Amino acid sequence: MTLRQTLAFLLFDWLQVQTLCERPRFAEHSREQFEAMLDAAERSAREQVAPANRACDAEEPRLDAQGRVQLPASTATALRAYRDSGLLAATADAEWGGLQLPCAVAMAANAFYSRASVGVAGYGLLTSGNAHLVLAHGTARQREVFAQPCLEGRWFGTMCLSEPAVGSSLGDLTTRARPDGADFEADPLGPRYRLKGSKTWISGADHELGENIVHLVLAKVVGADGALPPGSAGISLFIVPKFRVEDGRHNGVTLAGLNHKLGWRGTVNGLLNFGEADDCLGYRVGAEGQGLACMFHMMNEARIGVGLGAALLAYAGFETSLAYAKERTQGRPVGQREGPMVPIAQHPDVRRMLLAQKAIAEGALALCLYCAQLVDAEDEASQELLALLTPIAKSWPSQWGLEANSLAIQVLGGAGYTRDWPLEQYWRDQRLNMIHEGTHGIQALDLLLRKASRPQALGLLAARINTTVEAALQRPELAEAANQLAAALALVGKATKAAWASGDPAQAALQATPYLQAFGHTVIAWIWLDLGLCDTDPGRAAARQYFFAYELPLVAAWLAPVLARQALLADVNPDTL
Amino acid sequence: MTLRQTLAFLLFDWLQVQTLCERPRFAEHSREQFEAMLDAAERSAREQVAPANRACDAEEPRLDAQGRVQLPASTATALRAYRDSGLLAATADAEWGGLQLPCAVAMAANAFYSRASVGVAGYGLLTSGNAHLVLAHGTARQREVFAQPCLEGRWFGTMCLSEPAVGSSLGDLTTRARPDGADFEADPLGPRYRLKGSKTWISGADHELGENIVHLVLAKVVGADGALPPGSAGISLFIVPKFRVEDGRHNGVTLAGLNHKLGWRGTVNGLLNFGEADDCLGYRVGAEGQGLACMFHMMNEARIGVGLGAALLAYAGFETSLAYAKERTQGRPVGQREGPMVPIAQHPDVRRMLLAQKAIAEGALALCLYCAQLVDAEDEASQELLALLTPIAKSWPSQWGLEANSLAIQVLGGAGYTRDWPLEQYWRDQRLNMIHEGTHGIQALDLLLRKASRPQALGLLAARINTTVEAALQRPELAEAANQLAAALALVGKATKAAWASGDPAQAALQATPYLQAFGHTVIAWIWLDLGLCDTDPGRAAARQYFFAYELPLVAAWLAPVLARQALLADVNPDTL
Repeated sequence: MTLRQTLAFLLFDWLQVQTLCERPRFAEHSREQFEAMLDAAERSAREQVAPANRACDAEEPRLDAQGRVQLPASTATALRAYRDSGLLAATADAEWGGLQLPCAVAMAANAFYSRASVGVAGYGLLTSGNAHLVLAHGTARQREVFAQPCLEGRWFGTMCLSEPAVGSSLGDLTTRARPDGADFEADPLGPRYRLKGSKTWISGADHELGENIVHLVLAKVVGADGALPPGSAGISLFIVPKFRVEDGRHNGVTLAGLNHKLGWRGTVNGLLNFGEADDCLGYRVGAEGQGLACMFHMMNEARIGVGLGAALLAYAGFETSLAYAKERTQGRPVGQREGPMVPIAQHPDVRRMLLAQKAIAEGALALCLYCAQLVDAEDEASQELLALLTPIAKSWPSQWGLEANSLAIQVLGGAGYTRDWPLEQYWRDQRLNMIHEGTHGIQALDLLLRKASRPQALGLLAARINTTVEAALQRPELAEAANQLAAALALVGKATKAAWASGDPAQAALQATPYLQAFGHTVIAWIWLDLGLCDTDPGRAAARQYFFAYELPLVAAWLAPVLARQALLADVNPDTL
Repeated sequence: MTLRQTLAFLLFDWLQVQTLCERPRFAEHSREQFEAMLDAAERSAREQVAPANRACDAEEPRLDAQGRVQLPASTATALRAYRDSGLLAATADAEWGGLQLPCAVAMAANAFYSRASVGVAGYGLLTSGNAHLVLAHGTARQREVFAQPCLEGRWFGTMCLSEPAVGSSLGDLTTRARPDGADFEADPLGPRYRLKGSKTWISGADHELGENIVHLVLAKVVGADGALPPGSAGISLFIVPKFRVEDGRHNGVTLAGLNHKLGWRGTVNGLLNFGEADDCLGYRVGAEGQGLACMFHMMNEARIGVGLGAALLAYAGFETSLAYAKERTQGRPVGQREGPMVPIAQHPDVRRMLLAQKAIAEGALALCLYCAQLVDAEDEASQELLALLTPIAKSWPSQWGLEANSLAIQVLGGAGYTRDWPLEQYWRDQRLNMIHEGTHGIQALDLLLRKASRPQALGLLAARINTTVEAALQRPELAEAANQLAAALALVGKATKAAWASGDPAQAALQATPYLQAFGHTVIAWIWLDLGLCDTDPGRAAARQYFFAYELPLVAAWLAPVLARQALLADVNPDTL
């Protein structure tokens, strides 16, 4: 079963994305066209992007004597192939040169590039995310000047949120924006400000891959008294080009240094100073104080994008270790002392590690495509469900994809621990996914304090799960799993009530992470059961059985402290540790 | 609570190793002397070894133009400090210049060096393991010629087991030994053979840190018909020096290449060819066909050594992330929107990650020292218990130490993902521990098929656990945990019966890995409860509570498929995946 076949099953047999072509927006498309697009992406990613993945790790970004970022030449070549795929504008309106693809199809096509190289694909995903934000919230002129060149792959984009002292707590950021002159609102590019501050963890911060870089910067507008507005309600969003569009001069954005990362080295990451000489112009997008709202408009898709990348890293490791396990011989079945050695895929523990990887990689992939379909659906219930599932789509593939990549190494043993194989890079690359776009702990708070505190959202999910359970109960081979899933769902419901028993968010927050874990496994069990309803593939059946036998029982274990309203995390004094 | 304080608690309050001084072998020692030795090791490791840890990773071993292994100069300096500690001969007889320390004290002193740098400490642990094997199985002359210089730190040692095509399945190895002349048995260095073959994954394979390298090589003696004896019963053990001792000439051992590892880069690792020009002499240790038995004599200590190193890597990450979490401010408690940002150690999820690390690192450390005390005990029951616990002491710290190191990265967020902090190196170094000295899956088979299939061994452990449970039931603050532990133990007992229900090892093997996991968590829960019986420290109490609330419930989840005698791993066809 290839990735191409798996994606076809998920898109066309399970999600039936071809039915979207009945809608006016997608009327130009057909299943055949979607398939052709997947084929083209598969080939381009394999032939032109995958070969760049090792070099972009081994030849980590560095600064030359002139302070310019040096990347391997193969990164630029690979990015040209990605640009030529048209996927930078996959979901954008035709008006902007976009393909108007459904989000699910765009994500499926992008899956091939993530499998080939998350480090290279990173530039493209950031740039198209950037452009979509400008399309959604910018003026007509901003779209034309800033988004269009990004969609065409001539310019690149970044998102500048964190500062050296401010990460998860964005409301505390200190980058400031001062209106530039009395006529600052009259600039055709949008209200013009002078920005000053430092931003860090900027992926794609600086490089010479394109003609310009569009930084989207969160900052606070200085009040008349010179003070910054407090909290996240004081944050606005600014377009800050590297080179000014009117004259091509430098716009006061300085690369202050590179971050030297454990993995994901293909995507250069650095610290940027804005306006050290009071020479940095930024153009506001959206209303003052609406910066976070604008940014978070795109956050669902960005977080599903992280999940998708995590799923594909897991998938890449799975494929490599499966091929190895079928070839490499070692030992004999327990109890046999003679005869030739057998492929290690014959050993039960290796099978366990292969099944676990498949259950993780394909389960995560299916969840991300399901969420993408909710983006496409656009109705209110779908958006409510999407909001609930987004922290799972971000966190579950990240956490379990890391485990999958570790298992891939383990299948190869000592060989997997060396650079002779790509598995160690996948594992290092994957480790970032639990950190960026909101850490694991932040996802847990988002789920329990915001999303799952809305009974209507939970009710929607429970209804969909119950529909799957009801259908599965009619199928002898799925009935036991259906009962297991129903029990897990009931336990999650009880845990939600237990966590919120006092009604105090601070009390609920104590339970957030184990709750996230249990919620995630329940959702993935549902996805696997739902896949089983339209499937006869024996490999996927084995992965589903693995998940229900070995993984789903963990839900009760993780929820034990939640149901007991365990208060240890409130009580412990860190100074005693 | 420092590591020094923790070790003092474990050795003197819990294990009461000072009572060993009543025995003739340890009569020269006292608690004061043990404490002084720990102080000296702590200082030497911190001041002279820890500074070498970054360089030995960043400046990975490489070959110069002459094919010689190049290591950073700081590695040699650090190793001199280790040699000067006397720990190479920590447990050896005074006759050989040894300190005659109890194993538990020697391991505790080594703990400081493992925390400082597993990559540097690796050379010392290998060399002393090598020397101890020769002391145990060699002739008087072999001890004097080969072991003595290793104990003095002038020579270094290796263990050569794996071959390119043979790893876990040692019985299939193909390195051959041919008696060297009709008088081969008359050589004063021991029966003399010519060796031919390739060995890989050799830590310390080649370098210029000392005057010579003593390779201990597993090989098969060629029969009169030129054939190799089949299976592991055909394996013998040979001493193969890099330079011949009689004239200092090269002994036909060639470095064929280096392995480029993900971590643990301080210890050079390579592929060795023996006797390419039929010029490699080896001296048999022990009887023909007794090679594996000789090697495995030392394997218990080597495997506990892996566990100890894993525990200390986890500890190093815990210390770093705890210090960071108490300093770094970010955000506010849930529900507070104003006021200064608080140290992240105030956030529940960060506390969870700190407690998990402490429970893992100190629980693993305690288990390894407990096993070391069983080595010291020498009575038959202790040796039976030691054999049962060894796969746990090897696998549990390796698996959960990796999780601890990942949590340490997570506490720091993006910063933890960079080389600005040592955490990413700890995590990469740690990943080896589930692979070397018998993979995780091999430990699981060792536990379920060999060790736990002996009712007397399980009975001994159950008796010790029940003693702890009985005592804890008398203590109100421990009674609930005691009941939880008793229930987990009962479940492990049921699982043992379920796994062995058919009496067929091949059937039992299907359940080995989840069984290992559950067994391990049960043992660590016992260790934590037993620590609680002689402890009033609030930090350890919190770690114990964490383990019982959040971790022990996993036992039932892992055992679910074992109790159900899940047959999926036998049934699945890898070609369908």
